[in-house]
Amino acid sequence: MPGTIHVLNGPNLGLLGQREPHIYGTATLADLERECRAIAEPAGFDIVFHQTDAEHEMVHFFHAARLGAAGIVFNPAAFTYAGYPILDALKMCDCPIVEVHISNIHRREAEWRSKSIMTQAVTGIISGLGIDGYGLAIRHIIRLRSQP
Amino acid sequence: MPGTIHVLNGPNLGLLGQREPHIYGTATLADLERECRAIAEPAGFDIVFHQTDAEHEMVHFFHAARLGAAGIVFNPAAFTYAGYPILDALKMCDCPIVEVHISNIHRREAEWRSKSIMTQAVTGIISGLGIDGYGLAIRHIIRLRSQP
Amino acid sequence: MPGTIHVLNGPNLGLLGQREPHIYGTATLADLERECRAIAEPAGFDIVFHQTDAEHEMVHFFHAARLGAAGIVFNPAAFTYAGYPILDALKMCDCPIVEVHISNIHRREAEWRSKSIMTQAVTGIISGLGIDGYGLAIRHIIRLRSQP
Amino acid sequence: MPGTIHVLNGPNLGLLGQREPHIYGTATLADLERECRAIAEPAGFDIVFHQTDAEHEMVHFFHAARLGAAGIVFNPAAFTYAGYPILDALKMCDCPIVEVHISNIHRREAEWRSKSIMTQAVTGIISGLGIDGYGLAIRHIIRLRSQP
Amino acid sequence: MPGTIHVLNGPNLGLLGQREPHIYGTATLADLERECRAIAEPAGFDIVFHQTDAEHEMVHFFHAARLGAAGIVFNPAAFTYAGYPILDALKMCDCPIVEVHISNIHRREAEWRSKSIMTQAVTGIISGLGIDGYGLAIRHIIRLRSQP
Amino acid sequence: MPGTIHVLNGPNLGLLGQREPHIYGTATLADLERECRAIAEPAGFDIVFHQTDAEHEMVHFFHAARLGAAGIVFNPAAFTYAGYPILDALKMCDCPIVEVHISNIHRREAEWRSKSIMTQAVTGIISGLGIDGYGLAIRHIIRLRSQP
Amino acid sequence: MPGTIHVLNGPNLGLLGQREPHIYGTATLADLERECRAIAEPAGFDIVFHQTDAEHEMVHFFHAARLGAAGIVFNPAAFTYAGYPILDALKMCDCPIVEVHISNIHRREAEWRSKSIMTQAVTGIISGLGIDGYGLAIRHIIRLRSQP
Amino acid sequence: MPGTIHVLNGPNLGLLGQREPHIYGTATLADLERECRAIAEPAGFDIVFHQTDAEHEMVHFFHAARLGAAGIVFNPAAFTYAGYPILDALKMCDCPIVEVHISNIHRREAEWRSKSIMTQAVTGIISGLGIDGYGLAIRHIIRLRSQP
Amino acid sequence: MPGTIHVLNGPNLGLLGQREPHIYGTATLADLERECRAIAEPAGFDIVFHQTDAEHEMVHFFHAARLGAAGIVFNPAAFTYAGYPILDALKMCDCPIVEVHISNIHRREAEWRSKSIMTQAVTGIISGLGIDGYGLAIRHIIRLRSQP
Amino acid sequence: MPGTIHVLNGPNLGLLGQREPHIYGTATLADLERECRAIAEPAGFDIVFHQTDAEHEMVHFFHAARLGAAGIVFNPAAFTYAGYPILDALKMCDCPIVEVHISNIHRREAEWRSKSIMTQAVTGIISGLGIDGYGLAIRHIIRLRSQP
Amino acid sequence: MPGTIHVLNGPNLGLLGQREPHIYGTATLADLERECRAIAEPAGFDIVFHQTDAEHEMVHFFHAARLGAAGIVFNPAAFTYAGYPILDALKMCDCPIVEVHISNIHRREAEWRSKSIMTQAVTGIISGLGIDGYGLAIRHIIRLRSQP
Amino acid sequence: MPGTIHVLNGPNLGLLGQREPHIYGTATLADLERECRAIAEPAGFDIVFHQTDAEHEMVHFFHAARLGAAGIVFNPAAFTYAGYPILDALKMCDCPIVEVHISNIHRREAEWRSKSIMTQAVTGIISGLGIDGYGLAIRHIIRLRSQP
Repeated sequence: MPGTIHVLNGPNLGLLGQREPHIYGTATLADLERECRAIAEPAGFDIVFHQTDAEHEMVHFFHAARLGAAGIVFNPAAFTYAGYPILDALKMCDCPIVEVHISNIHRREAEWRSKSIMTQAVTGIISGLGIDGYGLAIRHIIRLRSQP
Repeated sequence: MPGTIHVLNGPNLGLLGQREPHIYGTATLADLERECRAIAEPAGFDIVFHQTDAEHEMVHFFHAARLGAAGIVFNPAAFTYAGYPILDALKMCDCPIVEVHISNIHRREAEWRSKSIMTQAVTGIISGLGIDGYGLAIRHIIRLRSQP
Repeated sequence: MPGTIHVLNGPNLGLLGQREPHIYGTATLADLERECRAIAEPAGFDIVFHQTDAEHEMVHFFHAARLGAAGIVFNPAAFTYAGYPILDALKMCDCPIVEVHISNIHRREAEWRSKSIMTQAVTGIISGLGIDGYGLAIRHIIRLRSQP
Repeated sequence: MPGTIHVLNGPNLGLLGQREPHIYGTATLADLERECRAIAEPAGFDIVFHQTDAEHEMVHFFHAARLGAAGIVFNPAAFTYAGYPILDALKMCDCPIVEVHISNIHRREAEWRSKSIMTQAVTGIISGLGIDGYGLAIRHIIRLRSQP
Repeated sequence: MPGTIHVLNGPNLGLLGQREPHIYGTATLADLERECRAIAEPAGFDIVFHQTDAEHEMVHFFHAARLGAAGIVFNPAAFTYAGYPILDALKMCDCPIVEVHISNIHRREAEWRSKSIMTQAVTGIISGLGIDGYGLAIRHIIRLRSQP
Repeated sequence: MPGTIHVLNGPNLGLLGQREPHIYGTATLADLERECRAIAEPAGFDIVFHQTDAEHEMVHFFHAARLGAAGIVFNPAAFTYAGYPILDALKMCDCPIVEVHISNIHRREAEWRSKSIMTQAVTGIISGLGIDGYGLAIRHIIRLRSQP
Repeated sequence: MPGTIHVLNGPNLGLLGQREPHIYGTATLADLERECRAIAEPAGFDIVFHQTDAEHEMVHFFHAARLGAAGIVFNPAAFTYAGYPILDALKMCDCPIVEVHISNIHRREAEWRSKSIMTQAVTGIISGLGIDGYGLAIRHIIRLRSQP
Repeated sequence: MPGTIHVLNGPNLGLLGQREPHIYGTATLADLERECRAIAEPAGFDIVFHQTDAEHEMVHFFHAARLGAAGIVFNPAAFTYAGYPILDALKMCDCPIVEVHISNIHRREAEWRSKSIMTQAVTGIISGLGIDGYGLAIRHIIRLRSQP
Repeated sequence: MPGTIHVLNGPNLGLLGQREPHIYGTATLADLERECRAIAEPAGFDIVFHQTDAEHEMVHFFHAARLGAAGIVFNPAAFTYAGYPILDALKMCDCPIVEVHISNIHRREAEWRSKSIMTQAVTGIISGLGIDGYGLAIRHIIRLRSQP
Repeated sequence: MPGTIHVLNGPNLGLLGQREPHIYGTATLADLERECRAIAEPAGFDIVFHQTDAEHEMVHFFHAARLGAAGIVFNPAAFTYAGYPILDALKMCDCPIVEVHISNIHRREAEWRSKSIMTQAVTGIISGLGIDGYGLAIRHIIRLRSQP
Repeated sequence: MPGTIHVLNGPNLGLLGQREPHIYGTATLADLERECRAIAEPAGFDIVFHQTDAEHEMVHFFHAARLGAAGIVFNPAAFTYAGYPILDALKMCDCPIVEVHISNIHRREAEWRSKSIMTQAVTGIISGLGIDGYGLAIRHIIRLRSQP
Repeated sequence: MPGTIHVLNGPNLGLLGQREPHIYGTATLADLERECRAIAEPAGFDIVFHQTDAEHEMVHFFHAARLGAAGIVFNPAAFTYAGYPILDALKMCDCPIVEVHISNIHRREAEWRSKSIMTQAVTGIISGLGIDGYGLAIRHIIRLRSQP
């Protein structure tokens, strides 16, 4: 079996669809999870889908994913800027990791919004493509894992 | 007909597959063009595909694309850092623009390699997913243009 | 009924009265809560009063307050400097928010003590007026909510 | 008798109510003075109320207040950024000083708008609570001076 | 005969009147050239008028102007920020050079928009007066050249 | 009648013609006023002409000009760098304001000489064209006010 | 009895021995605890030994240690960079505190890895001596507490 | 006759002897003037002695001194940091100018206290020698003026 | 046969001998080419000698040199500061590259004149030895290529 | 035989016990040497113990230690900040090097006191543990050298 | 007897009178020593006068002066910028220390020439008054030591 | 006779050939001296060749060379970064000075390795050409001195 893709969502994303919809759109987290599964499952991949507002829980999600995962799709949300414990946990994973931001963080209102401490440790970044970024990240992991 | 997607490639990408293959992979620009067409054409989109080492030619490619394009996929390569005339041309286009970098520019050897002057003006960024980034960008534009 | 004012206190404030009394005074958190109620209740306002050392709990207190609160009085304490998830939660609230610091954070020993990431998102700031700052913040919210 | 509270207003505040009303509101300086007196006088405090566009006059207002004042409420307005002679005069006063800004200076359009050279020398700061900030500052001074 | 004034226009100015008209107005480059001639010719001056998107062509325009020109009016547009080869060519000219920006570059959206590498080498700058700036620059050169 | 143009001159300009003539030329302030009138009056405009070494007087000149002026020509001289009260007064004026510097402030001896706090609030800037800059600024205001 | 030494370990140290062994070595947290006890107990000191990935739990460990501890050995791990609530809790303890880092944080891959917000508040630092640093820190506390 | 030495004192120095005596000592401005005269007059020099809290008055004192003075002793006090109009006036004087600070401005409490905008334009600086610095500066000017 | 040495000259060097002769001397580019050949040919090396004002042509010169050259002598001139496409082309060459500047770029008038983006990618630098630097660079390449 | 440990002390440490005893304690250098020997000799290690105020002598001490030493304990004292020749000498040694500072350099009065140019080249650092730091460093070297 | 004043001169001052005479004048070190004695001896003070090019010798001169000196006049010359061992030695002296620079270090050619690491530790500074600064410094020490 | 060329080598270069041979090569200082003589002597020039680890000795070598030398070849080694006394000595020499670095200092491991305080005062720089740089520098001095 091809394996499991972990989709990990940071703080306040539980309110997706309600929070600043002019930036983040109106789809909810449940919609997003459905879309992820719709792309992964036909290719034979499982989805583990989590959201948390607590940094230490995110650390634990990475501990759980570090052995045997096919890949990780990670939206750090507000952990982007100072989530150092998560960064250290993330670096313990050997599978490909795609950092996803729903909005283009370089166009946000403040300078610090454009700097992610995670970027030096991830495989790649997708930013500004809305929640479509999750699906594209999953497609990329599937492609990597499907190569001979 | 759904329209035309412009895929624009900056300096030295004509040597793709020969240059620093540990960073950029072994696929050539011709391979890349084929892959772009293979994704766009079944969805009814044309591909206009260019590469240039000259900044003013890139400016002209954007002038050509600014009216009526379905979207633009833009790998600025070394124009990323000081290509201000291109940035001004890019801002005249109303269609969605996805900036693509083959490598994760945040993991490159030097600090300045991670700062793109284009990011504040584009729709979104895909960085570090190899040449797969081009195809994912095209998929995103197709999806945007296919929404009712 | 005029509504509810949430008074939210950040880390280590549970030890108020014991910790660095030359800076923070000798009143305890219970004293403070009593003082807040003594100002709000005669004006017909309820007080919801919380203290937590955990960032994610503070996020949840803001989630709870974001709909229907009359106002929020927020002492971020050490969340002042890197509490980005709280900042994002705070921005989802439409009611007036007054950031309160017991000491004048601009007179503290270190440079970073004077910079609050919250200030750009709150209505106003009261700093350096001791625990009297809480009462003044509540008075301000009552006044705002009592205007025709 | 409890004493005198000096309320000192910096440049352009003579036009309060006319200047950028979306930021500063429509109340005039005369309205403001009335409000200050309405809070102070029932508690037995006098109000000395000044506005000046000239830095050296503000210096003299502080010289006048440095001996025997119950407290000072100071809105430095545009003296906030480079009024060093006032800062030195201010430091000669032993009474409590509350710096008041009508708008939240951290939300103003430009970076330098958020930095006050006065903050390290004052007792406390109230910023962003509109002209209500003056009244709250007076209440705080009254409370300090009324403690046994 | 009094001589020739070179009017040199940088990248994307060929689209003047079409590009961001809220910033640059609706007059076209042809309109602008007509206006320049209407001021210069009655005073007996010729106008050489160029626009280019290519940095090396601008270098050549300066090489052509460096001997014998009465003056140069130069709108560097996006060459303002990194056009070092032009700066070196410009420094070889002994005639007066007036740098013209249609918009006030200090009010543009981004910090880097306000810094011109050319300003230390030119005679003077006119910025923010719309295309009227060109005519005023020509008037200034005529005046300089008409003094005994 | 077309209206009044205010020409406001900052500190030490009363010594124009005597001070550092290699930078500022030999014309006096009276010469300059004559030249301004010679351009404005034929077009039907009045000139109000002031010079002051006192910041608060400059603030008052702007208060006087803020209602009903056709335009303002402002040479801030040494108020350029820290004249915040003037900046706030200037922002209360709705008429066009042209900032004029006699010398090219970007070629002066020191870095700080090239930074004006006024530039973000004015319509446009003329720098380095000698006292001719005043006349060109007046021409520009006349042109703006003469458009239908 | 000489007292209790608290040994407090930050996030991801639960995986000690598994994580980046070329940097952190192969000993586990259990090995480390054994070594600490082997040094402390013959000298008559108890060891309280904790590890947590949650910032607020670390805050509570410090609250527990602030009264009556003989000393604290603290490896903040990724809390080193933004654990402000812990810093405030740490400052409430009067006993000696030795900050320990297993690797030399000044030789790590990134600049920010070398800056600890804790260092200004601790007694001393041991960095780069492997897990031997814990034992040396305990020896130091024992020596301090054994002096007459 | 040897000439006149101008001794110019900036803001708040009128309170010398009363203000922060641990830094500035207990001698008054009148004491200081007496001491200056006691050194200058036996050598045949006059003393012009001024103090002002108003920047524009200091500008005028320099205008008065710029022609024919033997030398200037200048304590800018709080004009040290942003007194640009004074700096420009100072630069118009050809006589030697000695900047005097009573305290060592490099040992003051804040970084900005150690930076003087005047230092690049004066002949020399005496800082930290108490009010003795005035007398030493006068001796130096006398010596310069007494050389054949 | 020993091989070919490419000597590549950046913008405005076509005017060598005419441009700022106090800095660059009076020898022309033709003189320089003769001198290069006079050193290389007796040692059996060919010289390919180019000058261009166009960045993309310089990129192509490097593409031509990247396979089989004995060495490259490169004077980037004004491409020194922002010629990123050339830097990327340069990095594709495996032969030794000596960067040559005629003047000592660290003694030029402006700070930015002393920073070359090329230096981290070249073998070595010769700066300030006039056009003699070219000949010395060629000698060095000959020596490297003549070692057994 | 286990080998020799070099203990090298930088400038002014010859006055240990006399200089700023509130920071450095009252033990003398001779006391310190005795303590080092008391730890090393029972484990079979020799101590070479030096102090110098001259940078070049310290360089020579490192030249002497670079071949065959068991380890080096190095207190750079004021060489910490600009002792580049020592740093280069230090990098030529292959044995473990422990940098020791008697006081916690991060708590010293000035920012520059906390930055050591040596830290990137040493094995580890002990700072703030008083002269006990020397003994702990020796213990660490003994342990390293005693491992099979 | 009143005591001894140490006059300590840093590197290259042995060539005083020969080196850059447009900056340092033509008096030699011997002339300077004579002048110092001519001021000190009539007041009953001895002069110890040293010059050295070696940092460690300067450290020893301070060690010699730290007990019992009446005062120190110190021209650090090029030790001004990185002479940290001297700074530490200087801080061990309890007598008044006047730092003297012959030229105004704030007017020297380079930025770093204006920053002295010594200034925070000395009593006062005299800069730019030529070699007269030495005599004035001695006069100041005599005055301090002659006060009852 | 043509004259003498001084070749001066900084700290740790006495170990050339032993120290970090992957950076500095295997030739010894004696080899280097032989090579310098082999180039200079046939052209009739003497070589004075020195190496020192002591800053003050290097200062003296420059004092010896300042009168009458034909030229100086200077490898500052670790004096490159803070050798201010040497810089001042170097500036007293009127002959041409070529700064030589064996490795390309811009490719070294740390940022500070690329900044030389000497470069603004020397004639030219050769960096990264191995020990061949010495010979090329000597050739350049011979050429300069052989011109009529």
